[in-house]
Amino acid sequence: MAAANDGDAPAYGDDRWTHVFEEQIKEIFGHEATGFAVLNGAGANMVGLAAMLGRYDAIICPDTAHIATHEAGAAERLLGVKLLTAPTASGKLSPNDVTDQLHAIGDVMVSQPRVVSISQVTELGTCYTANEVARLVEVAHAGGLLVHMDGARLANAAAFLGCSLREFTTDAGVDVLSFGGTKNGALAAEAVIALRPSVVPQLPFLRRQSLQLASKMRFVSAQLSALLTDDLWLANAAHANGMARRLCAGVADLPGVSIEYPVESNAVFAALPPQAIPTLQEKFSFHVWDESSGVVRWMTAFDTSPHHVDDFITHIHKTLSPETH
Amino acid sequence: MAAANDGDAPAYGDDRWTHVFEEQIKEIFGHEATGFAVLNGAGANMVGLAAMLGRYDAIICPDTAHIATHEAGAAERLLGVKLLTAPTASGKLSPNDVTDQLHAIGDVMVSQPRVVSISQVTELGTCYTANEVARLVEVAHAGGLLVHMDGARLANAAAFLGCSLREFTTDAGVDVLSFGGTKNGALAAEAVIALRPSVVPQLPFLRRQSLQLASKMRFVSAQLSALLTDDLWLANAAHANGMARRLCAGVADLPGVSIEYPVESNAVFAALPPQAIPTLQEKFSFHVWDESSGVVRWMTAFDTSPHHVDDFITHIHKTLSPETH
Amino acid sequence: MAAANDGDAPAYGDDRWTHVFEEQIKEIFGHEATGFAVLNGAGANMVGLAAMLGRYDAIICPDTAHIATHEAGAAERLLGVKLLTAPTASGKLSPNDVTDQLHAIGDVMVSQPRVVSISQVTELGTCYTANEVARLVEVAHAGGLLVHMDGARLANAAAFLGCSLREFTTDAGVDVLSFGGTKNGALAAEAVIALRPSVVPQLPFLRRQSLQLASKMRFVSAQLSALLTDDLWLANAAHANGMARRLCAGVADLPGVSIEYPVESNAVFAALPPQAIPTLQEKFSFHVWDESSGVVRWMTAFDTSPHHVDDFITHIHKTLSPETH
Amino acid sequence: MAAANDGDAPAYGDDRWTHVFEEQIKEIFGHEATGFAVLNGAGANMVGLAAMLGRYDAIICPDTAHIATHEAGAAERLLGVKLLTAPTASGKLSPNDVTDQLHAIGDVMVSQPRVVSISQVTELGTCYTANEVARLVEVAHAGGLLVHMDGARLANAAAFLGCSLREFTTDAGVDVLSFGGTKNGALAAEAVIALRPSVVPQLPFLRRQSLQLASKMRFVSAQLSALLTDDLWLANAAHANGMARRLCAGVADLPGVSIEYPVESNAVFAALPPQAIPTLQEKFSFHVWDESSGVVRWMTAFDTSPHHVDDFITHIHKTLSPETH
Repeated sequence: MAAANDGDAPAYGDDRWTHVFEEQIKEIFGHEATGFAVLNGAGANMVGLAAMLGRYDAIICPDTAHIATHEAGAAERLLGVKLLTAPTASGKLSPNDVTDQLHAIGDVMVSQPRVVSISQVTELGTCYTANEVARLVEVAHAGGLLVHMDGARLANAAAFLGCSLREFTTDAGVDVLSFGGTKNGALAAEAVIALRPSVVPQLPFLRRQSLQLASKMRFVSAQLSALLTDDLWLANAAHANGMARRLCAGVADLPGVSIEYPVESNAVFAALPPQAIPTLQEKFSFHVWDESSGVVRWMTAFDTSPHHVDDFITHIHKTLSPETH
Repeated sequence: MAAANDGDAPAYGDDRWTHVFEEQIKEIFGHEATGFAVLNGAGANMVGLAAMLGRYDAIICPDTAHIATHEAGAAERLLGVKLLTAPTASGKLSPNDVTDQLHAIGDVMVSQPRVVSISQVTELGTCYTANEVARLVEVAHAGGLLVHMDGARLANAAAFLGCSLREFTTDAGVDVLSFGGTKNGALAAEAVIALRPSVVPQLPFLRRQSLQLASKMRFVSAQLSALLTDDLWLANAAHANGMARRLCAGVADLPGVSIEYPVESNAVFAALPPQAIPTLQEKFSFHVWDESSGVVRWMTAFDTSPHHVDDFITHIHKTLSPETH
Repeated sequence: MAAANDGDAPAYGDDRWTHVFEEQIKEIFGHEATGFAVLNGAGANMVGLAAMLGRYDAIICPDTAHIATHEAGAAERLLGVKLLTAPTASGKLSPNDVTDQLHAIGDVMVSQPRVVSISQVTELGTCYTANEVARLVEVAHAGGLLVHMDGARLANAAAFLGCSLREFTTDAGVDVLSFGGTKNGALAAEAVIALRPSVVPQLPFLRRQSLQLASKMRFVSAQLSALLTDDLWLANAAHANGMARRLCAGVADLPGVSIEYPVESNAVFAALPPQAIPTLQEKFSFHVWDESSGVVRWMTAFDTSPHHVDDFITHIHKTLSPETH
Repeated sequence: MAAANDGDAPAYGDDRWTHVFEEQIKEIFGHEATGFAVLNGAGANMVGLAAMLGRYDAIICPDTAHIATHEAGAAERLLGVKLLTAPTASGKLSPNDVTDQLHAIGDVMVSQPRVVSISQVTELGTCYTANEVARLVEVAHAGGLLVHMDGARLANAAAFLGCSLREFTTDAGVDVLSFGGTKNGALAAEAVIALRPSVVPQLPFLRRQSLQLASKMRFVSAQLSALLTDDLWLANAAHANGMARRLCAGVADLPGVSIEYPVESNAVFAALPPQAIPTLQEKFSFHVWDESSGVVRWMTAFDTSPHHVDDFITHIHKTLSPETH
């Protein structure tokens, strides 16, 4: 970013940092792929979805989807569309969840399913395999629907699956992708990537209208570009995933702790004895996922140290088995 | 209506038929109640709700609510709000369904619950008692929420409950009401009734903007006024309810038929052997509510004759027990 | 309408009155034309325009357009689009008004012109010739834009121009038309007509979502159908136009009266001495178009009698030249 | 920003950089003033206006307003409101422009004026005096309207007027302010400032929903805070203004050059011989404001050097008077 601050540059993305970023996107996701830097994750989702949806349309997504639960009703207000949410076992939509909604097509009394939106990694920390994505895309496309992927933590999925970003996105047939930088080390940099640009011709217009075009776009592009250089994105994500596995391994066998979902990224969901939660939160900050069942979510990051994880593990041990310490 | 067509009259509702209608509303619902004639049921709901909701707000309603399932995503597109839907046993929201959502208040990441919307009668043909409505209102108001009632079939509820329209609306504390005429004998006439006008000052503006103000409003008002005169609304609804009970009584004991919900209005929900449904539909037109479970919905109306009901009962008997006829 | 009230009929437009209406539309506007009955004029405009416009688009229209001035901001709120309004000499848009806006196409900082919307007759009572419409369509289509016609008083234009409805609509290349019934004798019946249905595939869905689908659609269709039978629409409109010309002829030479626009329909715009206006309004009801310039608008209708017009003329004479009476 | 990157910090604005920024806002604008950091200028405007406007409302603003011309229809799509634009002599709205619209209040057929939005400095580079702002506010408040100020270049106005930021904002009665950092040296940092927070209680919710809340808010706050420390904002703006005056002085007397508006900020609007424009643009990048009249806009910035300005002046001289060089 300091480099991008040196000297003048054209505004609104016609600068060399942005051009480099755009080239990197093509190298990673294929020559058709077109990247648009934006300002935050909800913005990436809203810009991509706006370009895929008409006024009358609906989105099929898991009931845990970030767009359904944590974007403040932006899908409803900014897009004006209905979310058809499906309950899932571990955050992953199944082909049946899509086909179950296709009966509505053609009925003027109900919103028309138009987009399937999945998160990779999911909000419960699990990952779709490339085959699972491909199968969902197949069912969606066969029904005349498009596929959107919320990849706020896409890098963590690649690190877990051990495959390229392209295998479970472009090659699996995904149409539009949100690609997250902020959760993987950037200050504030996300991207919408049109993997099939012909289905979303209005995307550049909608980025501006949706308040996601920065005048000094080069600072956003420079962050994304740095992440994409020398596989920094992968190293960051692999580290974060490793820290989550370390944390999981350190507490999984503790009496009273139950790991709720497979740890396939940088998140650990654990059920704890409810009375232990406030004690733990005195020293460590984390999110209580479900108050009633005592499930908490622990996130690791590109800059989480093993030492910090081990401290946390020790603290959990002490809190849950105070007599033995 | 023929009377209203005789001679000139001011446009957009400043006519004597509309004034009579407005007076009738005050007599029935109390002196504060202000009636606004509109053109259809979805319109009544959208105008009333628009006046109750800010940009950031959400509606708590049953997952069977007409606004959630059969108004083509109008709530999402025209209002831009999220629907927080709750599963229910028989179409009726419980106080807990409301309190379960109150944790969101004050959290900027999620839509803010602002309105509880219930249907009287419900989409499953059941009715809230006046006490049940009052209890929901109490919980809603205590949480800072308003209460909307979709009364597309309000008359049928009054006929079933044996109480005045006012007892389970104004007196129970409901803020805004949709009052249906079309399903009770009118050609095309519905109303939004502000029972507490001070909470919805923008309602008249939103009626116009939402495309629900007719220039020749006197034809709409005249229909509503006719329904409200000499308790025609009640006679019509009581008749329709009676026909539903007659139908229910005639088939409830048939092997293979299971009545799904209490018959408290002009709707009978019955589970049938799936193969019988197409045969029945050859001669009678009705809606299959749930394909997979074989549940159908039979509606009666102000002009359904006992003879017609009996014919239908006979036809069902023949279809389900062909050998005995 | 009484005929349509006799017996049962399928809901939401699948009835024989609607089928007759649909056939009549094809006879009048060509075999591709598809008619959709709706509930009011603003509704017809909003449904048609919604089907023509994306999220990022703008409408080019005269600054006097009904959609810009008298539909309560529905275009902005319900469609979310910008109106690019042009001043005009007599309510008619010129080809230059369209080409002046084309520079914006492709610029992500500004709304994208997508529809040209004109009113026939205009809000100032004037008419486009078939050639003028065709020329506007040519310019619009060449620039990649669609053309919408607000025909709330289309019949009056046909009566004035002495040509078929088709000559200045379908044959001139208009894409979508609002066709008004209410101002020409119906109680509450308007239609959106897709003259080129392939450009507006979502129209039926948007009618429902925009609150313009009546459950008892047959009553709306029956009104439209009656108007379209035996050229009743034309007789009604020709009569109204004649009454406007009679009124104009009776006052045009009066000192102090200035006729502002050519009287080409059922409207007379006249500038009067400001002090005369309240006196005239004591006995006759009309709209003051522009307070500051003393311009008033007098509308005639299908049921205005020559006697009534003459009374009004006499009253104007007396008011403006009191000493001579 | 490097400082804010050192160590962990709570997300979404609950960090010490944000707290410092919030304190600075109170020191500058008064103890009631509440600052909300956002991501770009259009975002600041949309968040502030969303909090001020209902569904039925309209904004009165100059026809040159950034919200009307360069925010891609965001006001119409994201807010759903109408812009009532007034032509102006030099970008400044007059009290009459406000009172001219008040007749609409109470008329259900038209959008209801609710907010007066002015830009300080204006899009034509001019400034309102504190008295002029106060007079507009007085008229607006008397009519029941609120006042919004788009201060993308507020610092430049303070530098020109020689008064504190508070004198022409809080003290003049403005309700909500957009305060620009990006055009005054920040990378990407703007703020919405509620000067009267009681009139916009939903502002924090609307920031999130409008995609303007950064998870790593501390980087935005740190930029704003740096600008507000030791009057850096004023030094930057005063420098930019000085460079504009230097440029103006250097070309004003050139034959063929006409300065269009008073140079009261960091913008110079000049009419040039049309054929000179492309020649100038070969070496220097600037915006052609009006193609037909040959008016161009030259902007200076916090980092424009006197040397660079002088080079440009010399180049203009050479281009316009080639024979004398």
